[in-house]
Amino acid sequence: MSVTGHVSLVGAGPGDPELLTRKALHRLRRADLVLYDALVDERVIALARHAQRFFVGKRAGRHALSQQEIHAVMIRAARRGRRVVRLKGGDPFVFGRGGEEAQALQQAGIPFDVVPGVTSAIAAPASAGIPLTHRGLSSAFFVVSGHDRDVFSDAIGALRPNGVTIVVLMGFARRAEIATELLAGGWDRELPAALVADGTLPRQQVWRGTLGDLADGVAQIAGGGPALIVIGKVADLALTGADGVNDALSAQTAVAVRARRTR
Amino acid sequence: MSVTGHVSLVGAGPGDPELLTRKALHRLRRADLVLYDALVDERVIALARHAQRFFVGKRAGRHALSQQEIHAVMIRAARRGRRVVRLKGGDPFVFGRGGEEAQALQQAGIPFDVVPGVTSAIAAPASAGIPLTHRGLSSAFFVVSGHDRDVFSDAIGALRPNGVTIVVLMGFARRAEIATELLAGGWDRELPAALVADGTLPRQQVWRGTLGDLADGVAQIAGGGPALIVIGKVADLALTGADGVNDALSAQTAVAVRARRTR
Repeated sequence: MSVTGHVSLVGAGPGDPELLTRKALHRLRRADLVLYDALVDERVIALARHAQRFFVGKRAGRHALSQQEIHAVMIRAARRGRRVVRLKGGDPFVFGRGGEEAQALQQAGIPFDVVPGVTSAIAAPASAGIPLTHRGLSSAFFVVSGHDRDVFSDAIGALRPNGVTIVVLMGFARRAEIATELLAGGWDRELPAALVADGTLPRQQVWRGTLGDLADGVAQIAGGGPALIVIGKVADLALTGADGVNDALSAQTAVAVRARRTR
Repeated sequence: MSVTGHVSLVGAGPGDPELLTRKALHRLRRADLVLYDALVDERVIALARHAQRFFVGKRAGRHALSQQEIHAVMIRAARRGRRVVRLKGGDPFVFGRGGEEAQALQQAGIPFDVVPGVTSAIAAPASAGIPLTHRGLSSAFFVVSGHDRDVFSDAIGALRPNGVTIVVLMGFARRAEIATELLAGGWDRELPAALVADGTLPRQQVWRGTLGDLADGVAQIAGGGPALIVIGKVADLALTGADGVNDALSAQTAVAVRARRTR
């Protein structure tokens, strides 16, 4: 018997609490301490009934705790025998610095595990009826963060224009700049593009147009949540179906389809 | 009140039944009919307690049903008022022809929804301790199917060598050929590479080496299940932690780390 605690790096999924995994649910129910980021639904956090819960993410551009402080809090709590859940939006190993946290725990000798989640990079487009791969349209996809200009440029610069679907996370504020960079790299103005805000939630909003529209700055979308960008032939698809199982999500989802400009 | 049934295209996750989402669980429990593919764990299928369950995937190179037949069965059952779950490994919109099935249902006017799943493209590497993105190592990832030579070549040909992580699904049998193609495209022989077989399951096996090793045909792995390939600097990481929560998976996982050849 060890008195040492444990840390789980847990993916909270893309938004809809029903898209949490069973394993994440079990970790939350047994947690003594939950450290959560922005973008995690409060209904998911509430599942940790017996836990102290602390927000450690970024709000209004300011970090509640630095990355080093988060590491220190997790390690200290585990050493005191507590069961810690580090709860992140989407998947813990897709952006979001889960790798750094795992590394810090490993170096400190703390028992930990990683509980993968449904990533918004796939689920938010799906919720708008956009499959990232589709026979005859796209046979690969490229996921990149749009937040940092240099990091984005370095990654996207490696991709020549072709049928690959591009998903840009954390790029909404820079959408016109990102599209302009792709056009300069030879991507087609008429390539379909979509924005998905608050993907998988009842307040989800979708904008559809072209890469040229994005570059021209005409792409607007309501919804204050995170929005991702999908670029590629599949962004034209809207494979959503009327839902006959009393699913609040599908019934309420407002899909704002913007007709593409005819030029 | 409508007598029309419903179809859910449901992601079964990467293997571990605990990585099923709550929404998928609810769909399975209420299902009258489940049509499942190869690679879906039998413990997941068994959750559909009240349903007739049919295997419709591919075994030993032969399809139990053609894609058109699968569409026809789903549509016919829904029209008879049945709640159908079309159960796919991983996520229904990442390869696996979920988009085509959604399109067929939409065209037939059948109510349907898509329940995203945890994709093995992310979760299997994570289970081997490999984050697809990691500060300083990789800021983007590229997911492609390796099954078809021409489709793979077309997609990978668009990607110039850089720090992007590559994940190849359904490419295990062609691993040497795939690595050789990347070397010809200018990717570095010494770039870390990993194979993950049966990712997230207790029988998971991991091989680690370099892209050159893969091309030389020396990459072997036990385990009869599906294996994916990860190529990029992150493939060297092994961020797994001793698990203190009686998790059968982490306790039993045999990680076969192959020392890289020193040359």
